[in-house]
Amino acid sequence: MNTESHNRIPSGKTAAAEFDAKDAMSDYRIQFILDDSEIYLDGNSLGPLLHGVKDRINHTVDHEWGRRLIRSWNESWIDLPRSVAAKVAPIIGAAAENVRFADSVSINLFKLMAASLIAAPEKTVILSVKDMFPTDLYIAEGLAQLLGPGRCELQLIEFDEISATLSETTNLLLLSQVNFRTGEAYDVAEMTNLAHQAGARVLWDLSHSAGVLPVNLELNQVDYAVGCGYKFLNGGPGAPAFVYVDPGLQKDLQQPLSGWMGHAAPFEFQPAYQPAPGMDQFLVGTPGILGMSAMDAALDLWQDISLDQVFGKSQALTAYFIQLVEQSEALGSLSVIKPASRGSQVSLTHEDAFAISQALIDAGIICDFRTPNIIRFGFAPLYTRFQDVVTTITRLEEILINAHYQNPKYQVAGKVT
Amino acid sequence: MNTESHNRIPSGKTAAAEFDAKDAMSDYRIQFILDDSEIYLDGNSLGPLLHGVKDRINHTVDHEWGRRLIRSWNESWIDLPRSVAAKVAPIIGAAAENVRFADSVSINLFKLMAASLIAAPEKTVILSVKDMFPTDLYIAEGLAQLLGPGRCELQLIEFDEISATLSETTNLLLLSQVNFRTGEAYDVAEMTNLAHQAGARVLWDLSHSAGVLPVNLELNQVDYAVGCGYKFLNGGPGAPAFVYVDPGLQKDLQQPLSGWMGHAAPFEFQPAYQPAPGMDQFLVGTPGILGMSAMDAALDLWQDISLDQVFGKSQALTAYFIQLVEQSEALGSLSVIKPASRGSQVSLTHEDAFAISQALIDAGIICDFRTPNIIRFGFAPLYTRFQDVVTTITRLEEILINAHYQNPKYQVAGKVT
Repeated sequence: MNTESHNRIPSGKTAAAEFDAKDAMSDYRIQFILDDSEIYLDGNSLGPLLHGVKDRINHTVDHEWGRRLIRSWNESWIDLPRSVAAKVAPIIGAAAENVRFADSVSINLFKLMAASLIAAPEKTVILSVKDMFPTDLYIAEGLAQLLGPGRCELQLIEFDEISATLSETTNLLLLSQVNFRTGEAYDVAEMTNLAHQAGARVLWDLSHSAGVLPVNLELNQVDYAVGCGYKFLNGGPGAPAFVYVDPGLQKDLQQPLSGWMGHAAPFEFQPAYQPAPGMDQFLVGTPGILGMSAMDAALDLWQDISLDQVFGKSQALTAYFIQLVEQSEALGSLSVIKPASRGSQVSLTHEDAFAISQALIDAGIICDFRTPNIIRFGFAPLYTRFQDVVTTITRLEEILINAHYQNPKYQVAGKVT
Repeated sequence: MNTESHNRIPSGKTAAAEFDAKDAMSDYRIQFILDDSEIYLDGNSLGPLLHGVKDRINHTVDHEWGRRLIRSWNESWIDLPRSVAAKVAPIIGAAAENVRFADSVSINLFKLMAASLIAAPEKTVILSVKDMFPTDLYIAEGLAQLLGPGRCELQLIEFDEISATLSETTNLLLLSQVNFRTGEAYDVAEMTNLAHQAGARVLWDLSHSAGVLPVNLELNQVDYAVGCGYKFLNGGPGAPAFVYVDPGLQKDLQQPLSGWMGHAAPFEFQPAYQPAPGMDQFLVGTPGILGMSAMDAALDLWQDISLDQVFGKSQALTAYFIQLVEQSEALGSLSVIKPASRGSQVSLTHEDAFAISQALIDAGIICDFRTPNIIRFGFAPLYTRFQDVVTTITRLEEILINAHYQNPKYQVAGKVT
């Protein structure tokens, strides 16, 4: 990845201020509602609120729901699963008609896995890696138990065993573009090709990469993908998720969550299901309009953003953070997880990771903890500054030098995020 | 049903004003944001906005998302599927711990049908009626096609054939408490008993009844129920849905949409699924917090409402409307669908039903049309006045007397709601 030009970045506040001054993306920050007394490095978990999103939710509530009531279904709501999808499509390298917003990532995973098994019932194995994002595995497990071992089995291996394990019984290779713990980014083209060479389909979960990494779904001939709206796409807590299917596969797919919004004529209320053509069959029940409207407005930010530029800044921010951690004596007890390629997050390990993460949050650096010993820092290029990286390092050094994290109040586990 | 005292209601504006003056529920209307130049009779499809909901959404957006960001998961969001359920529980006659809010009605139907089939695999038939709300049938159809005829079959009959058709192969009797077209209300106790006598479970869809009709899930020993948040419960467009399971059945159920929010320890990110005890396993992906917050605030209205009083006014409003239609000469070409028991809606039929519904909407009476020839009027007792019934009749008479509905602009079909 193109981080070479940032490998010799000098540290210190002056240098950071210079990078920020030269940052072509710095203008986007003012579109976000951010508290300048804090540094928010958890946009990989929940993106912050945009001014435009706040305005749009007000409009949806006051005008569309409050005044137009049921008429808004005709006037603005019914097309949202398609029109919002059209806005995310270029970010993931897809044509608008091959994407829809609907339900959650978990539900969309179920639709795709089930549809893929129905389409090729002789191939019964869903292959994935042990360190996959857990809900993806849970959904596969639920489907396998529902269908029984003759029709579906979940096989979990290490990442480097994929090539040797793919076989003619593999229906689906299920992968996340970025590992949620380590931040490692996998090669979409390479892994998709591997799956195809074995006669399998591939399903990519883009939850931890959409909006920061190039995906190029169609260029890379990806079969299926899902992704989350509330991380780097800033759609709000529990935002609807997107679902993608290769156009060549859509006609022969049938997903089993056949709800009325996926019917060819939903408002004719016919007793028998007739799937809508194309991607509309992936809609199920009535979409949550508040969440869908917020998602719609959040994606408006992308009208003139270059994903390459976002990716470039992402890699520069994370490279800078890693460099500063590694050259700090005070941070010697922290280890940096350094994958060959990385997403827009950096994970540090420490035996007191939980307590350190809590002390950092208390010091205004909003990061998060992942079991067993990981502190995660997400760097969202649309609002994170190079000076935020320096400040984060400074606070982290203070906490470690003074052993602040050993304060008993930071030892309490049981936090959920 | 107890409508006797309203059977001799005199018509006319003076009488209606007297009823409104005596209406113990009239104080609730001011909590809704309503346009007094219109009469909204579509609360059976989308309930209007409450002032408290608008305030709550602002708080969720500005404070919880905007300022507290990821911390709000710990501070307020993670418990919403349970705490919102606790508010709907008394309305449907259930204990809080047996209800959860999650996903849509369609998705919740899939969970329950699949779980019921897994729990009793020797019983393969889902029995329902031809005039059931279509998405319920579509979901059953999708499940039947996924599992195959040896494991699941959907059998559709007429309502009066249920008793004779229930058999030892019946896994589940799937019914809606109120028919969405005719407004007919079915007897939950009687039909639940019938199913149980045949050794079957029963799944009630309460979408068209929750918040206006007594349900008494636990008193009636109902096995499973789902219901919609956006109709008479006023939770907003595409509000989350609720799901109920008899406490005696929960331990042995396993629903296949096993997402991380239904895991016993969602934030430990274990690779294997372990269902949460009780109803929490019915959660799947990350809940949509904007919709969940709106739903939560909408149910606050119910803190001091008597469901019996709501039901009494519902029956009085619909009886009054039917009486006025039937005694109007000008409305002679309209037929009233008069089921033995009714929900909180009245359906009129006319060969020009679509055009008449459009002319009514144009005249400020917001009703809706259902194929092939039905005009639906929903009477939500929390904000509908007896004077609204009289005004509706007057406008309807004007439209029929002057044949306004024959204006070509009202003939255009293709509206979605």
